[in-house]
Amino acid sequence: MKIILDAMGGDNAPKEILLGAQQAVRELGVEIAAVGDSVKIDACVKENSIDMTGITVVQAGEVIEMEDDPTKAIRHKKDSSMVVALRMLANGEGDALVSAGSTGALLTGATLIVKRLNGVKRAAIGTVIPGKEKAWLLLDSGANVECPADMLNCFATMGSVYMEKTMGRKAPSVALVNNGAEESKGTEIYVAAHQLMKQNPAIQFAGNIEPRDIPRGEVDVVVCDGFTGNVILKLTEGWAKFFSGELKALFKKNVGTMLAALLVKGGIASFKAKLDADEYGGAPLLGVNGVVIKAHGSSNAKAIKNAVRQAKACCENGMVEAIRENIQR
Amino acid sequence: MKIILDAMGGDNAPKEILLGAQQAVRELGVEIAAVGDSVKIDACVKENSIDMTGITVVQAGEVIEMEDDPTKAIRHKKDSSMVVALRMLANGEGDALVSAGSTGALLTGATLIVKRLNGVKRAAIGTVIPGKEKAWLLLDSGANVECPADMLNCFATMGSVYMEKTMGRKAPSVALVNNGAEESKGTEIYVAAHQLMKQNPAIQFAGNIEPRDIPRGEVDVVVCDGFTGNVILKLTEGWAKFFSGELKALFKKNVGTMLAALLVKGGIASFKAKLDADEYGGAPLLGVNGVVIKAHGSSNAKAIKNAVRQAKACCENGMVEAIRENIQR
Repeated sequence: MKIILDAMGGDNAPKEILLGAQQAVRELGVEIAAVGDSVKIDACVKENSIDMTGITVVQAGEVIEMEDDPTKAIRHKKDSSMVVALRMLANGEGDALVSAGSTGALLTGATLIVKRLNGVKRAAIGTVIPGKEKAWLLLDSGANVECPADMLNCFATMGSVYMEKTMGRKAPSVALVNNGAEESKGTEIYVAAHQLMKQNPAIQFAGNIEPRDIPRGEVDVVVCDGFTGNVILKLTEGWAKFFSGELKALFKKNVGTMLAALLVKGGIASFKAKLDADEYGGAPLLGVNGVVIKAHGSSNAKAIKNAVRQAKACCENGMVEAIRENIQR
Repeated sequence: MKIILDAMGGDNAPKEILLGAQQAVRELGVEIAAVGDSVKIDACVKENSIDMTGITVVQAGEVIEMEDDPTKAIRHKKDSSMVVALRMLANGEGDALVSAGSTGALLTGATLIVKRLNGVKRAAIGTVIPGKEKAWLLLDSGANVECPADMLNCFATMGSVYMEKTMGRKAPSVALVNNGAEESKGTEIYVAAHQLMKQNPAIQFAGNIEPRDIPRGEVDVVVCDGFTGNVILKLTEGWAKFFSGELKALFKKNVGTMLAALLVKGGIASFKAKLDADEYGGAPLLGVNGVVIKAHGSSNAKAIKNAVRQAKACCENGMVEAIRENIQR
């Protein structure tokens, strides 16, 4: 299996991307096509003694920057690592694509170059977030700020397929974010979406989920529009940072608390692992005609490797085919 | 100053409400009109040896339950503690009202009985939430699921006045929740609201705030529609519960971690205080022609006392008058 990697995307490119590629080849047995500026890649490989076994470099002279306008960048930077990578995926020159570059550009590019599946109005971004019981998928986590009811229902189907195919969840439960459990709750769009999801044969609908219950991780898929999803995702990041900062401050107060830190060290490590987004790899772009994984902009080698693992699982388990079938039902 | 207290509202009524009233009389020097079933109140007073100095009981035979439909309950339960209390406020038989009863009913009742201020389309619920730098006001935190741009702008003005008048913030900074800092971000409504807030002479507009930055507490007022506000408020509650649960589990593992718990006890207490909603009292209903404070349904005596303190501060500092003036500008 060959995974196409945007070697120039993200805050730590190309170094962490290439180190992640090296880990992926060794641990996952995949081939990697690393797309980017070959001069820069060669220099980075030498400087960090990266073993390039199983990794082919594909030349692309430009880079899409985070501040570029997504649509303009995709249309005009034809030789950017992201556009070249997307074209390779569209042409079947690889099985899946992983990029830590601009989310907006990747989404626009995937839609324009890889294309959407029939019946999918808009692609969505799914993000796996840890919870008390288990990790859960949030979608749309920011791609589409405004979503009519049928789009939310489509997200429900795609999210359910993703959790079944790549996370091994049997009959995943799917809930709709809302400000109350009753069917009548929420905006007109959410009331209509609730009815559509209730009748959707492709999902196990668990009804509305109130935001207070989301961290419990009792459902597999949490559906909402991208504006709300962005709030859920980013507010979660913000509070996690707040709490870990408070915890650190707590242990740094004096000798006694530093001793306390030693005593609970193991527990804190497992607590951090639970919250460690790197463990869950990247965010899938669902609804496009190919496997596209958006790794976090700040991804390190481990996060890249896990995103590749995720991409591999999507391919092996026929995720795109399964979405196509379920959408057409 | 006389504060009208809905003695039958909330999970712990009437006991905690009356104990809160007793604390408020002693510590804040206010008079209290406790509205509710006088037989039940008398029994509770005896059972708990509550000192009723400064507290008058006003008879109201019915109670609005949490599961009652708000509009129907307000229209039909004319003798409920909440409706009687609202009528007293409307008739000037008290300076402010505190209730831990149903939020929906209180909002509907305040709108129908106390009435909105001129120029205010819908009342909003503000909630003070702790942050890293300082506590901040979230509004609307759940009253209005759909809000046009001018309504959001009105919330901005009301929130700013509230933080200035009752929390002593000088020239409070006001931000709009959005999925990016740029003016062009968000739904059409949010793009339009950004422009209105930018031109609003009654506020210090700090631009958009991304949800990740909300927990930092760098602005005084965070404005959004009630659907989004409910997500922010309740998700925050959910994660706080998650993190405190994880922390507890961490310290209960073995003798070593229990020793660690002793060593950091002081720090944990101050950390909890930061997150303790009881410290901040209740949520003001902003935009009605009177001071109405919604205390949390699970309020204990301390939370009720703090809600009364808040109500008192609103009266003393002319909060309603200041909102009226600023809305008319």
